[in-house]
Amino acid sequence: MEIKKIVVIGGSAAGPKAASKARRMDENAEVTIIQKAADLSMASCGFPYYVGGFFDDRDQLLCSPAGVVRDSKFFWNAKKIETKVKTEVTAIDKVNKVVEFVSMESGEKGEMPYDKLIIATGASPRKPAVPGIELEGITTLQSMQDADFLRKISDDGEIKKAVVIGGGLIGIETCEALHLAGIEITLIEMLPQLLTFLDLQMAKIVQNYVQTKANVIVNNGVEAFLGENGKLTSVKLKNGTEIPCELAVVAIGVVPNTKLAKEIGLNIGVTGGIVVDEYMQTNDPDIYAIGDCVESKNIITGNPVHAPYGDLANLQGRVAGENVIHGNKVKFPGTIQTGICKVFDYGVGATGLSKKNALRNGINNIETVINASLDKPGFMQGKLMITKLVVNKDTRTILGAQVIGPGDVSKQLAIWAMAIKGKLTVDDMANADLPYAPPYSLAIDHSIATAHIMQNKLNGYFSGISAPELKAKLDSGEKIYLLDVRNPDEFEVMRLGIGEVLIPLGQMRRRIGEISADKNSLIVTWCKISLRGYEAALILQANGFTNVKVLEGGIMSWPFSREK
Amino acid sequence: MEIKKIVVIGGSAAGPKAASKARRMDENAEVTIIQKAADLSMASCGFPYYVGGFFDDRDQLLCSPAGVVRDSKFFWNAKKIETKVKTEVTAIDKVNKVVEFVSMESGEKGEMPYDKLIIATGASPRKPAVPGIELEGITTLQSMQDADFLRKISDDGEIKKAVVIGGGLIGIETCEALHLAGIEITLIEMLPQLLTFLDLQMAKIVQNYVQTKANVIVNNGVEAFLGENGKLTSVKLKNGTEIPCELAVVAIGVVPNTKLAKEIGLNIGVTGGIVVDEYMQTNDPDIYAIGDCVESKNIITGNPVHAPYGDLANLQGRVAGENVIHGNKVKFPGTIQTGICKVFDYGVGATGLSKKNALRNGINNIETVINASLDKPGFMQGKLMITKLVVNKDTRTILGAQVIGPGDVSKQLAIWAMAIKGKLTVDDMANADLPYAPPYSLAIDHSIATAHIMQNKLNGYFSGISAPELKAKLDSGEKIYLLDVRNPDEFEVMRLGIGEVLIPLGQMRRRIGEISADKNSLIVTWCKISLRGYEAALILQANGFTNVKVLEGGIMSWPFSREK
Repeated sequence: MEIKKIVVIGGSAAGPKAASKARRMDENAEVTIIQKAADLSMASCGFPYYVGGFFDDRDQLLCSPAGVVRDSKFFWNAKKIETKVKTEVTAIDKVNKVVEFVSMESGEKGEMPYDKLIIATGASPRKPAVPGIELEGITTLQSMQDADFLRKISDDGEIKKAVVIGGGLIGIETCEALHLAGIEITLIEMLPQLLTFLDLQMAKIVQNYVQTKANVIVNNGVEAFLGENGKLTSVKLKNGTEIPCELAVVAIGVVPNTKLAKEIGLNIGVTGGIVVDEYMQTNDPDIYAIGDCVESKNIITGNPVHAPYGDLANLQGRVAGENVIHGNKVKFPGTIQTGICKVFDYGVGATGLSKKNALRNGINNIETVINASLDKPGFMQGKLMITKLVVNKDTRTILGAQVIGPGDVSKQLAIWAMAIKGKLTVDDMANADLPYAPPYSLAIDHSIATAHIMQNKLNGYFSGISAPELKAKLDSGEKIYLLDVRNPDEFEVMRLGIGEVLIPLGQMRRRIGEISADKNSLIVTWCKISLRGYEAALILQANGFTNVKVLEGGIMSWPFSREK
Repeated sequence: MEIKKIVVIGGSAAGPKAASKARRMDENAEVTIIQKAADLSMASCGFPYYVGGFFDDRDQLLCSPAGVVRDSKFFWNAKKIETKVKTEVTAIDKVNKVVEFVSMESGEKGEMPYDKLIIATGASPRKPAVPGIELEGITTLQSMQDADFLRKISDDGEIKKAVVIGGGLIGIETCEALHLAGIEITLIEMLPQLLTFLDLQMAKIVQNYVQTKANVIVNNGVEAFLGENGKLTSVKLKNGTEIPCELAVVAIGVVPNTKLAKEIGLNIGVTGGIVVDEYMQTNDPDIYAIGDCVESKNIITGNPVHAPYGDLANLQGRVAGENVIHGNKVKFPGTIQTGICKVFDYGVGATGLSKKNALRNGINNIETVINASLDKPGFMQGKLMITKLVVNKDTRTILGAQVIGPGDVSKQLAIWAMAIKGKLTVDDMANADLPYAPPYSLAIDHSIATAHIMQNKLNGYFSGISAPELKAKLDSGEKIYLLDVRNPDEFEVMRLGIGEVLIPLGQMRRRIGEISADKNSLIVTWCKISLRGYEAALILQANGFTNVKVLEGGIMSWPFSREK
């Protein structure tokens, strides 16, 4: 029997998963991981929580579920996988099927033959090419060393001010971690919004919330890092503002590590990642690639994307690990780019396409709605969630959902991710059979209610208007009859204050004569979340008003300043 | 324009939903709800939490999300729906399309004509026909009055011992509510297990947990209620045991209220519910029926079921409400019987078919696995969940899942419910794209890992054995080589103690010679959750052992007593 030689370059997430799966598929194969870093199988998504003090034992980032550190000894004893750490692969000889490596400690060089090679070289943090980038006090949060560095800062408690550059997932998670250490944070984002996987309105709502914890500056980039004696003292922005700080964390995305792949002519895609097929195989049939260094397919658009998510890395690793042993038997279908992050006490995430992303991919026949409601009944201390749903308005197929708020966002995203996976329509979702009991959800789950609103909109039962649309109309001076239909006590506590009239829904029918709008002029109705706004619109329509729109998501989804 | 007359019999959940939807579909219709009880739109699923003191304001059970009590005034003002409460419909004249009713307060009789009638008469608690059932101190938890009665008992704090009869959802929720009031509970179930929607092993694990909070007696029914001076003093069981108590709550299921429907010859199904089609229409085209009084279709089996769930009642109400106005336009597709309940700090639920239920419906080509893992990483204080997955082993389609444990069970059930809705296979689920971040899930979500285990089993990579199967073999004296592959420190803290040998996975390869079993005799391997048990089995198989089985779900899913 011939013994298969499997070599895996990279020992963080995808690599060890592939190596372990290959071992399980073939007890006799020789499986080797070559890893540049000192550690193996780091739970790198856990770094922000280690820095933030959610737990104190660093080894927990490196442990198996049974609490054993996944070091070289563990991999050998439990999995018969050889691991060479602190070892860099310097070249791949694809003709002779050999990798060349060098020990980063001893400088010793070596070679290792392979039958099948798996590249899992990951991605590196992008760094802005601006003056001062070399100053002490500037870091990323990508490696175990970065995590150690920031945790020490957090424990020492000496640093008072920090700037986080980049308003994506890692940037925001880092904000939370440093905020918990009592550090005053300024968050800088070059684009007009945080979290670009969200549409603008949703991102604004998140930004309003983050601003209660940190200074947030959007539409501005870093001009230079300024320092004294080699140490960071402030960050200078493109608009000239200087922000004093002793620490800057750069989190402006990652770049796939493809140097080795490029050198041997593996195809690199438009996103900068290694091109692989559904089997995770590159254009060299003996070389597979997985994890943050590859380009994936977005299942909805069919277009290539770079999706550096820890869960996908693991799934891809499992696929490659089986295929290098059994031949190309199992497929990785691609991604719908489901992501979630904890933003202080908010969950924030998206799955499938945002409106922005749909349009960018040439998908124009879409409809959207926003729904705001509690995640479970008020008497069970339900918490607010806001969902924006995106569907194909011809086929009524679900294309994407964004969910934010202090409520159970993760479950909502999982539901929508599965709906997209199952190619379900809004009408399928409208009668989904989800687990209901008061400790867990409303009788009509938030996701199902969102589908109901979308059905009502697609069926023409109401017309919606988004907060930014309404704001733009008001800013342009358009005359609109604005109608808040809540109760006076609610109005007293919180209101938009944009010129609205208050007529509670319960008085709408008898006070309809008070509405001083032409039958054909625009009326916009709302309440707290806009269920009552919808009912008011129906009454107005039945009374001959022809141009009534409901403010989607009501006051809870209004991302601009309010009177109260 | 002719004005439609819509009459709805029943004002709890389905009825008001249908009436409200009908109103929204037609501002001019005359919509009336006739309700026997005093209250409207009660959140009856919230009763146990009111009794248990999760909240104190009774009105919260009757409130709209904006905090307004949904009384007759609310229905009229906000929805222009007339409501007649404390009014019983005594007959339906389907020829002349009139309902006859009587005021339960004044005794006054009346009639109301309808164009379309919606029957939402609900279900009544089943009561055991045994001596003493009329004694004071015996109640159900079905009505607002029941909730008030039990809440008062809970507040008064005088009752020390109670018996709950029935180990279904309501019975167990009632246990928790009364336990929180400091009452000593005995839970009686006639069948061999609690929660019959679970397979036996899963139910046993739940029972083990409930037994830490209450006395649980299965396989035993009530022979009689015994009392003194008309007051309950004890419950006598079929085996002669007498359990002293001052309170008994009967929760042995509900019976559809179909008296009116039967009197006018509406079709009644095998489950005792009113037969309706996908439009929620009965065999009288002008009469619809919804909620707990109807029979639904199980989407997977196609067979009729009685599914008295609050969420389905609402969805059915919405469908009927639209159809009575627009004609039969929208459909209710049926149910997969997704249910969940809070059992103290456990979530317990199921969706789709259990193994038992599949077999009962003649679906024999099934495979099952059990997976136990944390819901999120240990460093994020992950909590245990145990899932039993049921699939069609030919098509690999997902048929059902049961999930229990202190972890995030609700999200898992929602995922599986959506997988079933989308007709997904195990292989689809194996690469699902779910929201991952450490505060919310493992890198490979518990549901996906469950699919992976099922794939491995269906692909023949391992053979599993369930705990009850192993126990039965051991009890029958079969000679089995039992192998725990955890670490010695884990073994010291907790172990089955059924004659097992301990060889840690990390020592397996070099100590394989110690295994004193024939190559063809049965070896069963396990660890805490059985990932390591699986890896050990693969090593044994590679070394020529031909009959190795993995104990599914490991020690965490062992429902019998352990040595430690």
